[in-house]
Amino acid sequence: MSDPFAQQPLVYFFGQGRADGTSAMKDILGGKGAGLAEMTNLGISVPPGFTISAPVCQTYLETRSFPPGLRAQVERALQRLEAATGKEFGGDKNPLLMSVRSGAAVSMPGMMETILNLGLNDRTVEGLALRGNNPAFAWDCYRRFVQMFAAVVFGMPKSSFEVLLDEAKHAHGAAREIDLPLAALKTLVTRFKMLVADHVGEPFPEEPMEQLWGAIAAVFKSWNTRRAIDYRRLHDIPDSMGTAVSVVTMVFGNLGEQSGTGVVFSRNPSTGERQLYGEFLSNAQGEDVVSGARNPEPISALHTRLEGPYLELQRMASTLERHFRDVQDMEFTIEDGRLYMLQTRRAQRSGQAAFRIACEMVEEGSISEEEAVARIPPYALDQLLHPMIDPSATLDLLATGLPASPGAASGTVVFSADRAAELGGRGEAVILVRQETSPEDFHGMVASRAILTARGGMTSHAAVVARGMGKPCVAGAQDLDVDESLGVIRAHGREITAGEWITLDGSTGTVYGGQAKLLVPQMGEHYQRLMSWADRIRPMKIRVNADTPADAHRGRDFGAEGIGLCRTEHMFFEGDRLTAMREMIVAESKAEREVALAKLLPMQRRDFEGIFRAMEGFPVTIRLLDPPLHEFLPKDEAELVLLAGELGKPIEHLRRVVDALHEVNPMLGLRGCRLGIIYPEITAMQARAIFEAACTVAARKGRVMPEVMIPLVASVVEFRRQALLVRQVAEEVFQERQLTVPYLIGTMIELPRAALTADEIAREAQFFSFGTNDLTQTTWGLSRDDAGHFLPLYIESGIIEADPFQTLDQQGVGKLIQMACDLGRKTRADLKLGLCGEHGGDPASIAFCETVRMNYVSCSPYRVPIARLSAAQAALSARGTVDRTKATL
Amino acid sequence: MSDPFAQQPLVYFFGQGRADGTSAMKDILGGKGAGLAEMTNLGISVPPGFTISAPVCQTYLETRSFPPGLRAQVERALQRLEAATGKEFGGDKNPLLMSVRSGAAVSMPGMMETILNLGLNDRTVEGLALRGNNPAFAWDCYRRFVQMFAAVVFGMPKSSFEVLLDEAKHAHGAAREIDLPLAALKTLVTRFKMLVADHVGEPFPEEPMEQLWGAIAAVFKSWNTRRAIDYRRLHDIPDSMGTAVSVVTMVFGNLGEQSGTGVVFSRNPSTGERQLYGEFLSNAQGEDVVSGARNPEPISALHTRLEGPYLELQRMASTLERHFRDVQDMEFTIEDGRLYMLQTRRAQRSGQAAFRIACEMVEEGSISEEEAVARIPPYALDQLLHPMIDPSATLDLLATGLPASPGAASGTVVFSADRAAELGGRGEAVILVRQETSPEDFHGMVASRAILTARGGMTSHAAVVARGMGKPCVAGAQDLDVDESLGVIRAHGREITAGEWITLDGSTGTVYGGQAKLLVPQMGEHYQRLMSWADRIRPMKIRVNADTPADAHRGRDFGAEGIGLCRTEHMFFEGDRLTAMREMIVAESKAEREVALAKLLPMQRRDFEGIFRAMEGFPVTIRLLDPPLHEFLPKDEAELVLLAGELGKPIEHLRRVVDALHEVNPMLGLRGCRLGIIYPEITAMQARAIFEAACTVAARKGRVMPEVMIPLVASVVEFRRQALLVRQVAEEVFQERQLTVPYLIGTMIELPRAALTADEIAREAQFFSFGTNDLTQTTWGLSRDDAGHFLPLYIESGIIEADPFQTLDQQGVGKLIQMACDLGRKTRADLKLGLCGEHGGDPASIAFCETVRMNYVSCSPYRVPIARLSAAQAALSARGTVDRTKATL
Repeated sequence: MSDPFAQQPLVYFFGQGRADGTSAMKDILGGKGAGLAEMTNLGISVPPGFTISAPVCQTYLETRSFPPGLRAQVERALQRLEAATGKEFGGDKNPLLMSVRSGAAVSMPGMMETILNLGLNDRTVEGLALRGNNPAFAWDCYRRFVQMFAAVVFGMPKSSFEVLLDEAKHAHGAAREIDLPLAALKTLVTRFKMLVADHVGEPFPEEPMEQLWGAIAAVFKSWNTRRAIDYRRLHDIPDSMGTAVSVVTMVFGNLGEQSGTGVVFSRNPSTGERQLYGEFLSNAQGEDVVSGARNPEPISALHTRLEGPYLELQRMASTLERHFRDVQDMEFTIEDGRLYMLQTRRAQRSGQAAFRIACEMVEEGSISEEEAVARIPPYALDQLLHPMIDPSATLDLLATGLPASPGAASGTVVFSADRAAELGGRGEAVILVRQETSPEDFHGMVASRAILTARGGMTSHAAVVARGMGKPCVAGAQDLDVDESLGVIRAHGREITAGEWITLDGSTGTVYGGQAKLLVPQMGEHYQRLMSWADRIRPMKIRVNADTPADAHRGRDFGAEGIGLCRTEHMFFEGDRLTAMREMIVAESKAEREVALAKLLPMQRRDFEGIFRAMEGFPVTIRLLDPPLHEFLPKDEAELVLLAGELGKPIEHLRRVVDALHEVNPMLGLRGCRLGIIYPEITAMQARAIFEAACTVAARKGRVMPEVMIPLVASVVEFRRQALLVRQVAEEVFQERQLTVPYLIGTMIELPRAALTADEIAREAQFFSFGTNDLTQTTWGLSRDDAGHFLPLYIESGIIEADPFQTLDQQGVGKLIQMACDLGRKTRADLKLGLCGEHGGDPASIAFCETVRMNYVSCSPYRVPIARLSAAQAALSARGTVDRTKATL
Repeated sequence: MSDPFAQQPLVYFFGQGRADGTSAMKDILGGKGAGLAEMTNLGISVPPGFTISAPVCQTYLETRSFPPGLRAQVERALQRLEAATGKEFGGDKNPLLMSVRSGAAVSMPGMMETILNLGLNDRTVEGLALRGNNPAFAWDCYRRFVQMFAAVVFGMPKSSFEVLLDEAKHAHGAAREIDLPLAALKTLVTRFKMLVADHVGEPFPEEPMEQLWGAIAAVFKSWNTRRAIDYRRLHDIPDSMGTAVSVVTMVFGNLGEQSGTGVVFSRNPSTGERQLYGEFLSNAQGEDVVSGARNPEPISALHTRLEGPYLELQRMASTLERHFRDVQDMEFTIEDGRLYMLQTRRAQRSGQAAFRIACEMVEEGSISEEEAVARIPPYALDQLLHPMIDPSATLDLLATGLPASPGAASGTVVFSADRAAELGGRGEAVILVRQETSPEDFHGMVASRAILTARGGMTSHAAVVARGMGKPCVAGAQDLDVDESLGVIRAHGREITAGEWITLDGSTGTVYGGQAKLLVPQMGEHYQRLMSWADRIRPMKIRVNADTPADAHRGRDFGAEGIGLCRTEHMFFEGDRLTAMREMIVAESKAEREVALAKLLPMQRRDFEGIFRAMEGFPVTIRLLDPPLHEFLPKDEAELVLLAGELGKPIEHLRRVVDALHEVNPMLGLRGCRLGIIYPEITAMQARAIFEAACTVAARKGRVMPEVMIPLVASVVEFRRQALLVRQVAEEVFQERQLTVPYLIGTMIELPRAALTADEIAREAQFFSFGTNDLTQTTWGLSRDDAGHFLPLYIESGIIEADPFQTLDQQGVGKLIQMACDLGRKTRADLKLGLCGEHGGDPASIAFCETVRMNYVSCSPYRVPIARLSAAQAALSARGTVDRTKATL
């Protein structure tokens, strides 16, 4: 291994108006260290200090020792610090005290450790007491330090100290720690230190240097706490990043009424309004704000209390926002009337605020429209488009599962699709709760406000259908024991029965008891303006996956420019249609099958007419029947008997059909174009429905652009035969109607072999749509339905970085897609290329589609705005004009 | 479309010692036409004639019309023919009569049509009568011509004519047609022509030119009869080839006792013995030989009857064999003491003959050793290595299925594996008959002579296991209704019960009632000599797939140079082992699991020791546990209850385990290295068994070369983690034993993603073994177990050319393999590459492996000789020194 420290310093000093680092060095200094350096360089009042680089953290965690040279560099920095402050580290008179803070390149709020007041011991505490002329203050600092050091460095529970503190307060009738008499504070420090000695087996370290190294090591170690690891996993932050450590001269907000501490934003992060926004706590240290022991005042109160520092703060906020060209989130302390800035960073903001701020900064001339578009994080849209639980609501957590479809909803619990349809039909708010859902639950899902399942993953039936309908869904809530027959949910010893209210948040995967207050989404003028910029920027079209006229309309409302995937089979799952479909499946001859198909024809045609009308001439890609036929048959014997009666068939025949259709691996079985090849009459019926509908709409002056998609093609011969049949039917219909409509025939590329032989297929196919769900399944040899047995462990243990069904695996599946695009275009230069499936709504996957120059991506209606934005951001990133990383916070 | 006739003539004349064509023009002239041309050029006595090229056939079949210029060229050829023979086509005196014969580039015996005596009508028949001075002969020829023309050109059933013929024979008390009085023959011709006129609605064509064009068109059309199409499908002959038509002057073997006709081989095609071999029929036309109406004499009889023509025939045979440098199969006719050769072609030969002839021709200096190797068709080995049914046996066909594993066997029917084990254990010959087999039937299969199943394809469990054991198997015999519980097979209204004898032929897929006589295979010196040449030629090593010491020995006996695939799971299916395995699966903690694994360890170690010893230092590739765990659990409730008792676990727990392990698509589920990642203790146990066994053998001066294979890798990270664990265990064992053995760790490339990221995987893996069974399943999205629903139709209707599970799909799967080889070698130049799985025993697939420069292929023991031969042939073909096509006949 090469020595990572051969070139770079390990320690970066800042103070006296100059810093070794800059804001561009986040990877090395962490966000906090980089901010402190940049502010120092800008001449802003920052307590001097130094930052130990993040690569040191990696070395420390690997080797459990500090790299050579670190001690010397830290000692050198300490000397500069003493020179800059005129204080002495460990000195009796004017002791230098320090805070030791973590800070990675990416903000991980509250995940790692901080120690304040480091450098205090029985000698230096007296020096501090002299300085503020306030021994109680000094001993309270000391008491806090011991407590914090013990917790962070020795991992002692805070409660042990709280007990002693409460005892002391009780004994002296003191409401707050600061109200304790000096003697009591001194006793507390002694007792705290004895507690530590008992726990550690050694006395509390009095030596400031020993304290410092202990604190540095502890901050490094805090990178690998369970919660920090979980946080990184959740936010896709690489483990190798490591944290920097900033050691900063202490300033005291708790020196009296001329002191205080707070947090401000340069604009309101909830609404985006342009005004200083934040909170302030008089006579307090930062931890008092965090602990919630005292209630802070709004920042405006500072104006009255300490006008000078307030105006100074306003100037600083404005300077920093201008400098960083974005809204800042800042920490400050006022020590005896003097303002110190302790941290600045890009402000997190609500979805609404993100849009307003971006728009207004364009108006102000601070940023370009392209930058504005690049800056909207995709989650901002999620928030904007879905109801959310009021942050101020008190919640009663029942269980957690997977955040399968975003948004929040409240409703009464129902356990069956029929009941959901019944109550939902009457306008009641219901939530369908199932072990897992199947296509037969579809009507119940339509009638519910949200869906909750105990089993299944992010791509389970419930999740996929819910996202398609834009309904909140929590899937795979394994804590729940759903007893559908008894109508009861058991969770952690509690029981929820049918009719009780629950609330769920599909954005976070949480389920609550009762009816929580929800906030309704707002898409205002800022949204519209920014999205119009995005639409201008992106070359890729955005289409919607829509199976019904209603979905098609919804997609159009969200800005879709066509349908990328219309799954005809979803049309077959309702009432009469399902019966006709089943009649077709159990038919004993081609003639019988054609009778059943003739019943389905007018239903399909009607749907297609509605869809074509809704899309007003935008292209509509219709996939021919795809799923294995057994999916349409009843699952249990009782239903089968019922069906036998309904169709007038002997039950034995139906059983034989069920048996014959049984497959060991249905995913790799008789489905897709294989069905159309075995039963050409199905393809013929569907083609007829499509072209008759197209002609009907065209005859009334409507524009239509059907694109017929042959699914699951592995070989060009399959495609050729099905395409020939479709073309024959099209010609027949055009003859009958004396009318011709333009159309394309193409295929879904969803098997590796199709990608590998794309040059041949493109000789016949006019478009490719990448079915990345199935392509991922086959490329990985990984069944979506079964991946739950090991995929979570794979992700948790870092074998794979992300669920390949959510974010496209660019290395494997992406390589096949790239190959198919290249081979396909080689044969047919104007081949139309698109992607449908779950990945079409995922920003990282959309960015990939831009790099291979796809013509469009298609996603569920509620993902259309995110896709529009992501496509624009991907285009900007590809052009290299705007740094895309700025939008990722 | 470009004009295929722009450059080439449509008609090729031969006669008077010169021909327009040569034997190299098979594609254009067909085998028959090319042979006639070459013989003419050689000065051999051939009746003159001309050949219409095969491309004309393609045009005719596409357009249903003859290409421009054909008529003129045929007329010109007829003129040359008249000049050469001094006869006149349609002439009254000395009429030119012709045979019109089909002949494609590849021999398709009996598949297409022939018409003899063309040119006869009411006038020309008198000319013919004059010539031979034999009116009865002339009218019999006429009678035959009408009958043949009606059948071939008008598609009339032969039986209509047979009725009239029988009537006449009966009326005149004639035993043979030739015994009929002249008047009766004339009446017959008239009645035949009336029958044709009735059927066609027009009079029988009297005009010779009209007869000729009708015959040419009919021969072309016969290319597309059902049986011809089926034959081509079976023998992988492209439909686009088409047939040529040879129009040849008639010579008559039925002119009297100085005439005759026959077929000879230049060597004995059954034994390979060097002597003229064949049959002869005096005073007869060719069709008499075919129809079997008279019994021919052995060719030696000709020597006594007509010594001159016999000696001439011997010279001709010798000339032709020398000229074509291979054994010839010739047709001849003797007309009035004069010998005419009508056809010569490479002789089909038995497996035994193929080896003997090749060896002896090398001895004679006619061909090189390389040519000898290139000439052995793979089927010759199949015949040589397996028992076959005596061709002279009278058979009672019961049913047909798939030829799933070659060879023939007789035995009594048993319906359960236990019963098979019981009777087979006593040495009785039994055949296991099942609906389909599962791993639990393994012990029964071991004890049976052959396996017969009613369901399943060429890659079903029964087929794969039977091939592995070298036992005959007929799978998927759908005509059979196998009732295992009642112990009866029903087939076409018959019933076979347990204990009755049947015979099956796994090379053809046929099942017979009773005990047929079998011929035992013989591998003599010719086999040994030829295989030693093959071994010298081939660069690729041949390994064997072997799971037991017995298989390993068998593989060595067949010449295997290592084990390419040792499937450890097969070791777990027997008795105690299965119980220990199940104990491991249902374990409720890691500790419990380790207890069960500890029981399996010594069993595995013992197997590995035996295998290492058998392989004497040749490499042994051991695949870690691969199949989904549910395959090891009982299938029905009763057995589950039994198991619960055996293991002392509550039945509810076992049911939960079964439930939890249930998968929707087990092929894409928790298996392969995913198991080892979830349960590292399994990998650790297996690694320990491997290295302990290796050390034990090495300690006793044995050489060992284990190659540990991590299965189902999709990502390099999976491989890295499992390899690390294996290496750790190896080090532990080496420490304990104070001994080190060399070993490799590699992976099976069986998922598209592994092939796509092969460069990364090769960074860690020392070898790749292509698991083409699973790679085909995932690349095609095609489950082997379910493909039976549509794959047969796909093959039949020409959507795919061959079952991709039998012959490697080079276009799709092969492209991935090529990519993986290139990427892998880019990272690791000395990466060892091999292929295991069904394709390793398939000649075409082996040839592909040679083109991508694999180090070895591995196949089941009984395929090893074929693989050795095929690898040598592939190498010769790649060098271009020997034309590989010669070996395909």
